[in-house]
Parts: sequence; structure tokens; C-alpha cells
Amino acid sequence: MAENFDSKEYLEEVDKYWRAANYLSVGQLYLRANPLLKKPLTSDDVKVKPIGHWGTITSQTFIYAHLNRAIKKYNLNMFYIEGSGHGGQVMVSNSYLDGSYSEIYPNISQDEKGMAKLFKQFSFPGGVASHAAPETPGSIHEGGELGYSLSHGVGAILDNPDVIAATEIGDGEFETGPLAAGWFSSKFINPITDGAVLPIINLNGFKISNPTLLNRMSDEDIADYFKGLGWKASFVENGNDFDDHMAYHEKMAKTLDAAIEDIKAIQKHARENETPDNVKEPIWPVIVVRTPKGWTGPKKNLEGEPIENSFRAHQVPIDISANKMDHADLLVDWLKSYKPEDFLNDDGTIKQEVIDMAPKGDQRMAMNPITNGGLKPEPLKLPDYRDFAVDIAAEGHGKPVAQDMVVWSNWLGEVIKLNPTNFRAFGPDESMSNRLYGVFENTNRQWMEDIEEPNDAYMANHGQLIDSQLSEHQAEGWLEGYVLTGRHGFFATYESFGRVVDSMLTQHFKWLRKAAEQPWRKQYPSLNFVDTSTVFQQDHNGYTHQDPGMLTHLAEKKPEFIREYLPADANTLLAVGDVAFRSYEKINLIVTSKHPRPQWFSIEEATNLVKDGLGYVDWASTDQGQEPDVVIAAAGTEPTWEALAAVSLLHDEFPEMKIRFINVVDILRLRTPENDPRGLSDAKFDQLFTTDKPVVFAFHGFEDMIKGFFFDRHNHNVHVHGYRENGDITTPFDMRVLNQLDRFDLAIEVVNDVPEYAVKGQSFVRRMEDMVAKHNAYIRDEGTDLPEVNEWQWKPLK
Amino acid sequence: MAENFDSKEYLEEVDKYWRAANYLSVGQLYLRANPLLKKPLTSDDVKVKPIGHWGTITSQTFIYAHLNRAIKKYNLNMFYIEGSGHGGQVMVSNSYLDGSYSEIYPNISQDEKGMAKLFKQFSFPGGVASHAAPETPGSIHEGGELGYSLSHGVGAILDNPDVIAATEIGDGEFETGPLAAGWFSSKFINPITDGAVLPIINLNGFKISNPTLLNRMSDEDIADYFKGLGWKASFVENGNDFDDHMAYHEKMAKTLDAAIEDIKAIQKHARENETPDNVKEPIWPVIVVRTPKGWTGPKKNLEGEPIENSFRAHQVPIDISANKMDHADLLVDWLKSYKPEDFLNDDGTIKQEVIDMAPKGDQRMAMNPITNGGLKPEPLKLPDYRDFAVDIAAEGHGKPVAQDMVVWSNWLGEVIKLNPTNFRAFGPDESMSNRLYGVFENTNRQWMEDIEEPNDAYMANHGQLIDSQLSEHQAEGWLEGYVLTGRHGFFATYESFGRVVDSMLTQHFKWLRKAAEQPWRKQYPSLNFVDTSTVFQQDHNGYTHQDPGMLTHLAEKKPEFIREYLPADANTLLAVGDVAFRSYEKINLIVTSKHPRPQWFSIEEATNLVKDGLGYVDWASTDQGQEPDVVIAAAGTEPTWEALAAVSLLHDEFPEMKIRFINVVDILRLRTPENDPRGLSDAKFDQLFTTDKPVVFAFHGFEDMIKGFFFDRHNHNVHVHGYRENGDITTPFDMRVLNQLDRFDLAIEVVNDVPEYAVKGQSFVRRMEDMVAKHNAYIRDEGTDLPEVNEWQWKPLK
Ligand SMILES: Cc1ncc(C[n+]2csc(CCOP(=O)(O)OP(=O)(O)O)c2C)c(N)n1
Ligand SMILES: Cc1ncc(C[n+]2csc(CCOP(=O)(O)OP(=O)(O)O)c2C)c(N)n1
Ligand SMILES: [Mg+2]
Ligand SMILES: [Mg+2]
Repeated sequence: MAENFDSKEYLEEVDKYWRAANYLSVGQLYLRANPLLKKPLTSDDVKVKPIGHWGTITSQTFIYAHLNRAIKKYNLNMFYIEGSGHGGQVMVSNSYLDGSYSEIYPNISQDEKGMAKLFKQFSFPGGVASHAAPETPGSIHEGGELGYSLSHGVGAILDNPDVIAATEIGDGEFETGPLAAGWFSSKFINPITDGAVLPIINLNGFKISNPTLLNRMSDEDIADYFKGLGWKASFVENGNDFDDHMAYHEKMAKTLDAAIEDIKAIQKHARENETPDNVKEPIWPVIVVRTPKGWTGPKKNLEGEPIENSFRAHQVPIDISANKMDHADLLVDWLKSYKPEDFLNDDGTIKQEVIDMAPKGDQRMAMNPITNGGLKPEPLKLPDYRDFAVDIAAEGHGKPVAQDMVVWSNWLGEVIKLNPTNFRAFGPDESMSNRLYGVFENTNRQWMEDIEEPNDAYMANHGQLIDSQLSEHQAEGWLEGYVLTGRHGFFATYESFGRVVDSMLTQHFKWLRKAAEQPWRKQYPSLNFVDTSTVFQQDHNGYTHQDPGMLTHLAEKKPEFIREYLPADANTLLAVGDVAFRSYEKINLIVTSKHPRPQWFSIEEATNLVKDGLGYVDWASTDQGQEPDVVIAAAGTEPTWEALAAVSLLHDEFPEMKIRFINVVDILRLRTPENDPRGLSDAKFDQLFTTDKPVVFAFHGFEDMIKGFFFDRHNHNVHVHGYRENGDITTPFDMRVLNQLDRFDLAIEVVNDVPEYAVKGQSFVRRMEDMVAKHNAYIRDEGTDLPEVNEWQWKPLK
Repeated sequence: MAENFDSKEYLEEVDKYWRAANYLSVGQLYLRANPLLKKPLTSDDVKVKPIGHWGTITSQTFIYAHLNRAIKKYNLNMFYIEGSGHGGQVMVSNSYLDGSYSEIYPNISQDEKGMAKLFKQFSFPGGVASHAAPETPGSIHEGGELGYSLSHGVGAILDNPDVIAATEIGDGEFETGPLAAGWFSSKFINPITDGAVLPIINLNGFKISNPTLLNRMSDEDIADYFKGLGWKASFVENGNDFDDHMAYHEKMAKTLDAAIEDIKAIQKHARENETPDNVKEPIWPVIVVRTPKGWTGPKKNLEGEPIENSFRAHQVPIDISANKMDHADLLVDWLKSYKPEDFLNDDGTIKQEVIDMAPKGDQRMAMNPITNGGLKPEPLKLPDYRDFAVDIAAEGHGKPVAQDMVVWSNWLGEVIKLNPTNFRAFGPDESMSNRLYGVFENTNRQWMEDIEEPNDAYMANHGQLIDSQLSEHQAEGWLEGYVLTGRHGFFATYESFGRVVDSMLTQHFKWLRKAAEQPWRKQYPSLNFVDTSTVFQQDHNGYTHQDPGMLTHLAEKKPEFIREYLPADANTLLAVGDVAFRSYEKINLIVTSKHPRPQWFSIEEATNLVKDGLGYVDWASTDQGQEPDVVIAAAGTEPTWEALAAVSLLHDEFPEMKIRFINVVDILRLRTPENDPRGLSDAKFDQLFTTDKPVVFAFHGFEDMIKGFFFDRHNHNVHVHGYRENGDITTPFDMRVLNQLDRFDLAIEVVNDVPEYAVKGQSFVRRMEDMVAKHNAYIRDEGTDLPEVNEWQWKPLK
């Protein structure tokens, strides 16, 4: 039976559905019992401390109701991103109405009892968040930290050609940097191979205690802004006549239909007439919905100041609570204004005709599989990383020289080939600089703007790499959207500027953590974050480009979700990549080098290092089977290089010194099992690091992190040489000298720490100091490192 | 003698000046000797490893030359912000040409010898950065981490009505989130009381290895974008005829003149006809300069691929170095193409007519005092913070209840009044939520859009608070620009979202540090960063809003420039504010509470706590004159509250237990003097914390930070209770329970740590555990904390 979605009657049903969602949302804010208001409201029915947000709700439920209509009218595969995530009730109420909430949480049944629980649990200890959180059906986005809705929406629809991400954006969120950068996304979406994002700006005019900029901008200005950016804006508004809801419904239905039809026309045209590699950049629609903040709620507060259409609507708009019931009648009037008899049966079940306004099954936005693990999630197909290994045996440890990122990129190129529709690389204009050459051999950079070769290179309308916008926020947001919808990928960035998205990584981790607590949530592929162009080798750039602090930053998160890898060479990087790319539910931080470096470990050694997280390196140790005089440990490319050179220097001078060399790759395994389930046991740790011998630890990051690890161990005799926040424009080796992470300073440290060498080591110490002085003079003259440094090679220990 | 700035002859002189700057810039990139090319170029003349950026240079020197012309023509107070900071030569070359470089660095004289040094030092160990760094005359902006040029420019001209910040913006930088958010700045600049920012987009078409989005956008689209945002774009371009330099000069001169005249007209109109509180939002000009990247340089590389007008121009465009001289002739031709004989005398001095193209004295952009400490820097006038104190004596320690931020804001309000033109507050729409009530009593929020009361509140065209854009990047960038030009202010933010600008704080610190190494650089007022709405009290929001990690983040920087204050009550906050606001050269992180809290310290106690950084609290200790059984230390509002409640519980149960209570405010003083010049000596530390007694440390942040501090001390017997990354939407007290930072868990920790109580304390431990269980049940029923928790009050120890 064909429905007439455009009839006045149908829109009246939409209105009824909307009122139902509003009723449920207000109930969640205030009530803990008596959800049908069958009895007069008493303080037992009202929360002691109502907490949550009101102002954003009704414009969102309005949008949601119309999206439901559009899904049915056009048979869409669409889901909802709630930019103003603090309107947590929106998605909960809608999921409750369409039945999915009770399917997932059977104790929240679609009847009076269930509704009472629904109300009480909201924004309540032991209950559900006041935000669109991982426990919210249909959400892939929290919106706690505002700014990422658009990049998440775009990430989700890449390689999902049939999906529309209906992305609600707060007019406050609109003012953030990440969101503003997000509009350039349209220049990257391929209308053939990707789906569409439909941004819907919730222009309710206010944020926490300010009006919004958009609110005071004319439609013309807004339209021009979007026109310049390559979007077409349409407006849903009704002057100041906020109460004529049917007028809004009619306008919204018309505008949304037009937008959907635009999207369909764009896609149809492209898919029928163009090819993925040769397609015109479309002008995508944006919808701007002007409604008053706190729409349909109390018009004024008790002081007579406006709430509706004011910032005052942002949180709980009228002060009613269990202990403050004087104006409870206002709440009752408010709830009754939605005419619950229209959508609720007497027993609190929802009228079937209202339920029927939502789509069915997986077409319900709360149940769209894209929001729970993806449409067709598949593990990555990975080539055997061993096939890409540097051959160490042929020449010996430390003899081959290679660029870790170049070697790895050959493997990455294969990954790209094997996974054409569910693997992507992202970056802020740095992929070439980061030496992802093998990637370029197998794909191009996707962008929809004109391509002008030979001035451009490696650009195409379709490709598996997107790095042509200089924005870490975009690269990270897109990747998050991509992995949150079940696909795989990585973001490679200059180490220091990875920190531009510190807080995004925190929020992604928080999502992973809370999602893991939901048994119904499927697993997410890990987010791989590759820090390269690192602190200990800079060229072209100086101090601003030097910051390894991401290591500490992520180490402060819950260990279950974080991995930090510091492969010292290409083979170790290959082995790390294999583990990281197979993993789920993690943020994998991979800190690696892109410059020519000696290659240390055979692929078998590397594999073991990654498996165990760290390892004793027999060919670099002289303590075989004995108590060592000193343990030298290293984590990171340059730290390992320098530490091995220090071993060499020490061994040449003191062949009797018993040195134990340990290479650490998976640095968080140094933690105790109490702090990290994967942490080394004390027994194992003591066996490697002893309980009291001096440990000289060469580390890529800030030193406090290693100190913290050893604090929880028996052996406190550790001497960390890490990044000491000494940076400059200088030579690669000098960066290590500045931070005393160079071979000479490490060797001095060892001599100073091993009591037996306190006296007999002094002439050696002086020679090392002389080398540092020589280095300092030389680089100031020549601008490059000493030949003895540049040409140094590992030679086997005797 | 009036010059005809518009004549062809004058523009030919501008061209000559431009060529001189270009010559110097190429020289800096490649040469270390023979700067006048008097002899044939040998490998001794060329750097071993030329390092730096080329592509951005010549469009910037072009812009700079024209800005010089405009300064002279219109007698302007203008300075330069180099968004594409990696073009370090630009500002150096220009400063060298106008004589200021040699004034500041006399060894770099304006002659052959000086020029040789100038060339050699660039991007060279022991020399100067390849970026517009603190050592660069005239710079307040590094541009290492791209995105902040516009907010820096705007921050600089606030309350500087006579200044124009000519802000060069790379077309790559244009794509970042922070820069995109920056365009909304025009909605906050008051044309009467503030100066003007003149954004000049360096649309050279490329970034590192990609074309830019702007490059492929039509002028019409770009103009629409800006029109929507409220700016008027003008274009300087000459099709693809890049070599007709005089055409570019004519267009640039005309366009820049028009922009300057627009700015002057806007300001004149407003200043003569309007009042600061009633002024129309102007449409400010933006200039878009389309030139090819790598303009005037080598057209093609040796493979025949384009360099000019391609990404290939980004860094060192042709591979010539001391060890690779085969194509040295290309370099010579390139340098000579600038016709050095036009601007250099035989001895390498610069022709006077060229020097005269730059303005004189402080009107030279490199010498504008705004770029070195500010136009008229003044210390803040501060009211006596003691006058705002909470009276503790009257009721006793812990009895008064107050909101720290509210109390402090009364003092802040006075600061605002006393410093009407050199003090500002910034925020991302959170000032009201952060309870800055006293600020609102003394000023309004500055914005230039329409104001619609009563729906709006506290908005005005002029005010000392700017918080009406939801963007941490903007608030931080504006404040940075403001303090870098010698004024004072603070940024108050939700603790967790302060981390959105982690990397901006890193970069600001780096600037401070390197600037401090320049004897000629004046001091900067400190940047005050106020974290409130903190992790241990959340309402309305949950887990996403919980992150105290800024403490660790900043603690990893160099101690000379960082302060971290954790005042436990309003009086301590007042005392902290007084120290922070008087300070220079620091980032002061102040972590504070906005909620009603018991008030502990008299203003004298608070003053001493801040002076010493921490202190023994006799009224909360029971070890007077004796060795304690346990040291309980606390840093932060809720940690102090809970720790004191634990002292109470323990003392009631075990009156004989000798407890020492220490409150820590200035947390970084816990470091050793080796790690921090302000660190407590070991003797003093041991005296307070003992060398072996159990220390139970209640801390606001992540625990690794405290562990790291104790690692360097004798006493390793410390038990930290900090934020354990357990968060949720829950009650305030439950946030502490989740992280075992609550009174009950702290009391249990003490009993478990003091050996004598191992057995006799067990029934107490059980009672504490029961309280936690009771709490857990109660909050899940009631949604609020237990009355015995909410109503608990400190009572004097017996
Ligand atoms: C990055 C960030 N900064 C600040 C906040 C604090 N905050 C929460 S809601 C809000 C206002 C949001 O306004 P808008 O986007 O218009 O949402 P709505 O009006 O729909 O509530 C702010 C500033 C935040 N959540 N995230
Ligand atoms: C936040 C940030 N991300 C990445 C980089 C690395 N980077 C340095 S220069 C550059 C390209 C800049 O292009 P553009 O702004 O157009 O400058 P120009 O063409 O004038 O050199 C990039 C991506 C950076 N400096 N900052
Ligand atoms: Mg809003
Ligand atoms: Mg550019």
C-alpha cells in the first residue's frame, strides 16, 4: 500500500511522532517514575538532580523524524550523526520509539514499566550518559568534544557508496576549527565509489551562554559561504512564528526531499556517465534548519526572561527537582503539551501508527549496521611481511642501510592492492615527505578538484590515500569515521604535529573503552597512528618540529586500548605493522624513522621482538650466561642506533665489561601486570633488568615515562636518556648530542654508573667528552656530522 | 620631497628591492661564502647540506616589499606575520636590507663579510632557524606548526587601534582547522578600540607535495566564501604570465592601496561617527595573491619536470651542494638573474636607494616595537587580593562554603576595571558556565554582531572578555597574540577541552624559551591558562569531559617556563592569581574548581602556601614535633577535601596515629633542583616527606607524574591516588570513588600502608568498604550523593 508521504495527513503523523520523541526526551530529563503522569506528580516521581541538556533536543528530534520519513519515502540506507552529542535523549528516544532500544536492552520495555526505567536511567549514576554515547544504539559519535561530526560522517561514507550520513551539526560546533576545516571534505568525496554526507545545521541560534555567529548571519551570507566552498545551502525556517509546527514540517519535508533527490541525481549521473577516475566534483546539498533553541519548551523562566530562543534553554531550563516541587505544574503542562494521548496507549505502550512512522529492521537509523561494526566488516588481507624484509644474514647485523618507511611502504602498497575497498591511508600533505613511496606506486591521492600534471603528481579522482588537505583534524577525523564503520587504515604524520589531535585520540580511546563495555557492540578495527619525521632527525625544520610527547600522552590511557611500538629498524617495523593491522579495539601508536638507517634485526629476530615486546640481543651483549655489569636498553630507532654504538665503544675499550643489551619495541609491556594486563611479571622483568645493576635506558620520548615504569619495579638504578626538550635546527646527530642521547654520552653514563669503572674509566670518559667537543666544533663549521659518526658501522663483538 | 609612490619608476625601485630580498634569500639557502659571486663558485662556497624552503619565499618578499611601500605612502604602523613561517629567509633578508639585522646582530654587517655570515648561518648548526623564529627581528610568530597566523594577528591588534597586522597566510595553512576558524575573527574586532588585521593569502598554489584547494577554486568561489564570512576579497594575479613582474607590481600596489584605504575609511568612519559600544560590524579587506610557488626560481628540474608553479618548489629546488657541484652554474645563473649589480655595491654594501625603499626607524616592520614586547608594555595594576578573601577565622577551617571561581572572579572583575586597555579574558563560550560572574559585572563580551536582548545577555560591541566563538583554538591564539605583544590576560576552559590546544601551548612555550635566549628580546607577560570544570566534579556531562592530563603535558616542558598551580580553595586561588598575573615568561596552568566547596586556608596561610609552593598544615596534622606514622599529601581541590576527610576519619578511629598533612599548590616544586631550578632540596623534601614513612598522595592528575617526582627522591614509599582514567556520568563524589580518590579509599590506603595498623585497622577498613558499598547503592537509587558525604564538615582535631 503506497503511502502519500507528502500529504498533510502524513506530516501530521510525523508531527505526532515528533511529539512522542519530545515527550520521552523531557521525561528523561526530569522524571524517575510516573512516566504516564497517571497520578499527580510528586517529588518521588522527579529526579533529585535533573541533569542533561534541553535546548538542542527538539530541533534534533524534528530532523530525526523527517529523516525517518525520507528513509521510507526513498528507501534509503541512512544513519544519523549527532554533532550536538549532548542531546543524548534524541537518539535514545528515537531508538525507544522504533523498538530497537528494547531489542538491545530488553529491560527497557516499550510499556509503562520500561518507560519509567528509561526515564530514570538517563544521565544517572549507573545509567546512561547524557550524550550520544557508545551505549546509544545507532551512534558512532559522542559529540562530547565538539567539532568532529562532519569528518566522522565523511569517514563513514568513504567506500560505502549506498550510504548517506545524515550529520547534524550544532551552530556552536560550526564555529570550531575542526568543523570549519570539515567543509573541504566535499572536495574529496567520489560520487561513484563513496556515499554521501548530508550536513544538517541545527541553527537553533545559541550555544551555552552566547548566541551563535550563524544566528546573526543572513541566509544570503550563509549561502555564499557554502557556495564558495562548493556546497548548496537550503534553509528551513519560518520567521519568528515558531509555533506553526505544520509550516515547519512542510518546509522540512520539501527541503529534505530536494536534498535527497539532489544526492541521488548526483550519484546517478556520475555512476551512469562517468568513471571513478574521471568524475566531476559535485555540488552537494547542505540543509540549514533555523528553529529556536529550546523549541516547544517553556517560553520564559520564573523571572520572566526568555528560555525558548535563548541561551537559557541550553541545559535544564526550569528548576524543578524532587526537593523543589513548587513549580511542578509547569513540568506537567509542558509534558502534556505534547498530547501523550496521541501517541501512547493507556498501558504506556506506543501506538502502532506511531511506531510505524519509523522504518523497519536495519533501516531504522538506530539499527543501521554501519553504526555497529560496519556494513560488511572484513579483516584485512595482509601479504606476508616476511617477503618484504631486509636481508640481514647476507651482510650481518647493522650492515644494510635502508629507510624504514620506504621498506614498510612496499608492504603497505600490497595491503592497498589486496584491500581495494576497505583500507585507506590519510595524512596532512605529508605522505611523500614521509616516504610512503610504495603507497604511491599502488594508488593515488583521491581528490575531486582539477588535476594539472606535470605540476601535480599522483592525484586522481579515486585513490586509497587522502592527504591533499593540510589538516591533522581532517585526517584523524576521517580515519576515525572509517574505522568506526568497520574498515581499516592508518594516519601517518610528523611526530610533533600528531599532537595537534591529542584530544581527538583521547576521545577515540574513550569511545573504544565505553563501547567495549557493551556486549552488543561489535569490535572496531584498530586506529593506526604513525609518527614519523621524528624528533631525533630533523632537516628543513627545527625546534617546533620536535616533540615525542605522544608517547606519554597515550600511555596515560587505559592499557587495554593502547599500544606503543618503537621499532628500531625496517624489519621490526614490518613485524609491528603485521600485528597492528590485524588488531582490533586499539590505538596503535607506531613511532618510526624515514631516514637511511643501519638495519639490525633479521626478520625472525624482529618477529620475536614484537611477539615478546622486547628482547635480549645476544649479538650485542657480552654477558652471556652471567650477571651483567650493566644493562643497556634502547627503545626507538635513534636510541637503538646510539646505544649500539655505545656498546661498541665500550667493548673496544673494556672488552671485559659485561654488557647486556635489550631492545624494547612494545614499550608499555615494561609496566607491571597491576598497571597493565600485558605487563611483564616482576620475575621476568628482574631477570632481564636485574634488581640492582645499573640500567642505562636510551629512549625516544620524555624520560618521566620510563621513570614511572621503573618506579613500580625493584630496580630503581635506572639512568634514562630520552628527549630532554633540547631542540634546534641542527644536524641529525646533534639532536642526540643536545639531549645526551648520543653514543658518547651514553658510554659516559655507563662508565659513571658501574662502580668498578669509576676510576679506571676516566680517561675513556675524557676521550668521549673530547669527541662531543669535536662534534660541536665540526658541525658549526661544516653543517654536517663528523665522518666518524656518519660512517660508523657496527662490528661484531669479540 | 614628496615621492610618487604610484609612478612606474617607484614600482621599478620596489622591484629592485624585491630582487635584492630574493637574492639574499637564495644565498642563505645555498651559500656559505663568496656571497657576491666575485669569484667562480667552488664547492667551498656552497653548503654541504643546503636546508630550508624555497617555494614560499618570493611571493612573500613581494608582499613584504609592497607593505614597505604602503607604510611609507600612508605612514602606517604595520607589522608582518609570516604564516608560512618556514620561509625563514623572508624576514631575515628584509631585516638585513633595512639595516635592522645589523643593528641587532652587529657581526652580520651590511657588507660582503657580513653577508657571507648571513648566508652561512641560515638553517645551520649554531646559526639561525629556517623559520621565522624568536631570533628573527620583527617576528611574533614562528609558523612551524601551521594554523595560527590569523588568530595571532588578531590578538596582537586588540586594544592597539593604530596598528595593522599584515598577516601572510599560506594557501596550505588556509586548509587547517584553526585557520578556518580564524576567519570568524572579523566578528570580534572593534574598529574604534582595536586595530586591523590585513590577511594576505599567499596563494602560490602548492604545499609540500600537493596542490592547494584554493589553487583550484575560482576567484568567484573564493570571493563568495569570504563574502559569506564578512570579508571582501581582492585578487592580485596575472594569469599564467608569471614573468611580467611589473604587471604584478602594479596590481599589487593598487590592491594593497585599496585595502589600506578601506581599513582607514572603516576606522575613520567608526571613530568619527560611532561609539565603541555602538558600532557597525565592518567588512574588512582580504588580499589574495596568486603567484606561482617558487616564483623567479628554476623553471624545471634536471628531469625536465616543472619546479616553478609546482609542489617541487617547496624545499631546496635544485640539488646543488658542496659535494654536488655539477650544476652549480644553474645556481649562479639563478642568483645573477636578480641583477645584483642593481642593488649591491662592489663591497657588498647595499645601495642607499634600495635601503631607502624600506621605512625608517621603528616603522621598519622588523623593528616595530609591537613585535618586541609591545607598543607600551605595562605591568598589570592589581588590586590587593587579600581584600577578596574568604574569612576563615570567623567560622574556622573548612566551615565556610564558597565557589572558588566566583570568589576569584570578583578579584578578576577589579583587574578588568583597573586595566581597561591591556587586560583581556578569552574563552570558548564557557565563561558563564565557569562562574566568572565577577567578570560579567565589570565588562561585557565583545562582539560586533547584532545584540538581541533579553535573549542575549552581557554582549556588547566593546568589552574585555571575548568568549562568543566556540573555539579553543581561537581563544588560545588570540591570547597568545595578545601576550606576545606585551599585554595580559587569561583563557579559562573546561579542563578536558583545554587539551584541544595541547600543541599550541607547546609551541608557545617553545617560542618563550627561544626568545629568552635573545638578549635583545623584551619579556612577555605570562600566558594564564585556567582549567576549571574539572574531572572530579562533573555535571551535565560525563566521561568525555574528564581529563586532567594537561598537568603531565606541560610538566614535560622546560621548568623555567612552566608553572602548575592546584589551589585547594578560594583563598589559595586568590594568592595564586596574584603571583601568576605578576609573572612574566611563563605558562601558568591554574587548575581550579567552580563548585561550592569547603574553604580551608586563611588568606595568610594561602599566601604562604603559594610562596613556598607547599606546606605543612598544622591544624590538620597530629604529628606535631614528632616523626609521623604517615604523611598524607594532597594537591587539588577535591583531593584536598577528600584527604582532609580521610584525616578526620582516621583521627576519630585512631587518635594516637601520627598524621602529617601536607598541601601542595605549586606542584612542580616537588621536583629535584637538578630537574627544576625551583625544586625543593633533598633535605627540605626529606624533612617534609621523610625518607621512608608511607606517603599517601591524593592528586588531581594522572599518577605517573607524582611517581616520576618521587623516583628522584629518597622516599619511594609513596602511594598515589590520582585520576585512574575511570570516568562516567555520575555524582561528584562518585567520580572520586571510581578513582579511589575518595576519603574512604584514602583512609584504607593509610591503614594498609602503616605496618602497625595492618591487623588492628582491619575492622576500620571493613567499615570504610561498607561505606563505599553504601554509596554505590545509594547513588544508583537517588542520583545524588549520600547525606553523610554531602553534609560532612571538618571538625578540629583533638
Ligand atoms: C571542543 C568543545 N569545547 C567546548 C565544549 C563545551 N560545550 C558543550 S555544549 C556547548 C555549546 C554547543 O552549542 P551548539 O553546538 O549550538 O549545540 P546546541 O545549541 O544544539 O546545544 C559547548 C561550548 C565542548 N563540548 N567541546
Ligand atoms: C600543523 C602542521 N601540519 C603539517 C605541517 C608540515 N608542513 C610544513 S610546510 C607545509 C606546507 C605548507 O604549505 P603552504 O601553507 O601553502 O605554504 P607555502 O606554499 O607558502 O610554502 C606542511 C604541510 C606543519 N608545518 N604544520
Ligand atoms: Mg546551538
Ligand atoms: Mg602554498
